[in-house]
Amino acid sequence: MSVIEVADAADDRLADYVRLRDSNLRRSLEAEHGLFLAEGEKVVRRALRAGYRPRSLLLTRRRRAALDDVIGALGAPVYVVDDAVAEQLVGFHLHRGVLASFHREPLPGVDEVVADARRVVVLEDIVDHTNVGAIFRSAAGLGVDAAVLAPRCADPLYRRAIKVSMGAVFTLPYARLDDWYGGLDDLRRRGFTLLALTPAPDAVTLAEAVGEGEGRYALLLGAEGDGLSTRWLGQADVRARIPMAARDVDSLNVTAAAAIACYELTR
Amino acid sequence: MSVIEVADAADDRLADYVRLRDSNLRRSLEAEHGLFLAEGEKVVRRALRAGYRPRSLLLTRRRRAALDDVIGALGAPVYVVDDAVAEQLVGFHLHRGVLASFHREPLPGVDEVVADARRVVVLEDIVDHTNVGAIFRSAAGLGVDAAVLAPRCADPLYRRAIKVSMGAVFTLPYARLDDWYGGLDDLRRRGFTLLALTPAPDAVTLAEAVGEGEGRYALLLGAEGDGLSTRWLGQADVRARIPMAARDVDSLNVTAAAAIACYELTR
Repeated sequence: MSVIEVADAADDRLADYVRLRDSNLRRSLEAEHGLFLAEGEKVVRRALRAGYRPRSLLLTRRRRAALDDVIGALGAPVYVVDDAVAEQLVGFHLHRGVLASFHREPLPGVDEVVADARRVVVLEDIVDHTNVGAIFRSAAGLGVDAAVLAPRCADPLYRRAIKVSMGAVFTLPYARLDDWYGGLDDLRRRGFTLLALTPAPDAVTLAEAVGEGEGRYALLLGAEGDGLSTRWLGQADVRARIPMAARDVDSLNVTAAAAIACYELTR
Repeated sequence: MSVIEVADAADDRLADYVRLRDSNLRRSLEAEHGLFLAEGEKVVRRALRAGYRPRSLLLTRRRRAALDDVIGALGAPVYVVDDAVAEQLVGFHLHRGVLASFHREPLPGVDEVVADARRVVVLEDIVDHTNVGAIFRSAAGLGVDAAVLAPRCADPLYRRAIKVSMGAVFTLPYARLDDWYGGLDDLRRRGFTLLALTPAPDAVTLAEAVGEGEGRYALLLGAEGDGLSTRWLGQADVRARIPMAARDVDSLNVTAAAAIACYELTR
């Protein structure tokens, strides 16, 4: 472990932290180096507790002692910078003052992730990192066992998803399907009832669909706006809806619907 | 009704639509003129159906026919602009191509809003417009009868809140408390059980708190991060929690928690 003061935002040692709001740059940079960034003391501690290995930490002067109790054991450099350097580097005022860059680990396969699971959420094409983070937080908090992501679902280890999830993306095991078209077969073969959440008025109510909740359930959640694809709706064993009470509102947003469905599935 | 092509973003007739992302400017401008803005065809139609009176509409050329079926009856000018003028005016690419400025109506009083209500949500200091909008959408969609807002809760008629609510802010009746300190007395006097949602481990579970759901319930929801104030927690009849399943997640975000609580209250 070493604590190093850095005075220049262009210093190569800070390269993991550049331009955090430039999402195109970040995606290619993080993929190329196999890293992800966690922001804020609480979330960084959760990543460490979950066993992720840090590449480095970045602390502003004001928060330089924030992680003193764990820094000794990290085996990664700790960079301390002025607020102005931090802002120049990341592209906004870093008011939490704590960032860390971690190594990504190889994702487990779907089989491994669902092997002992009774309740899983399956995210089709949820493309908004905020929504992915919020769904992970609800699913993990309520006791869902795992998540499975379609190929086009947004990355749970993107900074914004991590932040909104409050670190739940570190503790809820997840895997990604290689194959969107046939991807649900594996879950069905393992005895999961495929439960598609939809606002369609002819679907059964969520409470009816879950019943006593025996058995294994995979809750399918579709994209913001468009919902589940016709393919996945067609593959589901049950189409379930959350009953709506008029007032010119025909559906809930996907994070609210996911929270309610996870609550009903795990109660 | 008149449809008017406007070629200059600085034209005074477009003044309601300037710099939509400058939240300080927008707050003072909208308060001064007693207006609010709705964005997107679907949401504008919902505002019209709910009886709000338009000051004007702003359509991009590509969407100029979007509201043709209702424009005749509006009694408000319809401005049509190029994409470039729209972008210069509002400060970003207006991809939906439909905006409308509406007159605000005087808010009803708390007594009026809760008079016939059995289920109300009470938002203490929820300061994020996204969260206010999402909570309105869930509450309205699930069948809550009204909302009551503490003095510092964010404005449901701010553009972002309207958008996230998908127009539910137009259909769920709401009022604002003048008095934070004593504001809950009124609800208690009317026979509402004050149910405070909290992650505190010693609270009863939500399902226990609601029981058979007879009687009148006011669900108290607190600020992002800090939750309900000590004052309001102390005034509650029941403190209720959503059971959490370890995984290093100690609470849900306020919109997920609100969705679950509204679902439980209205089932």
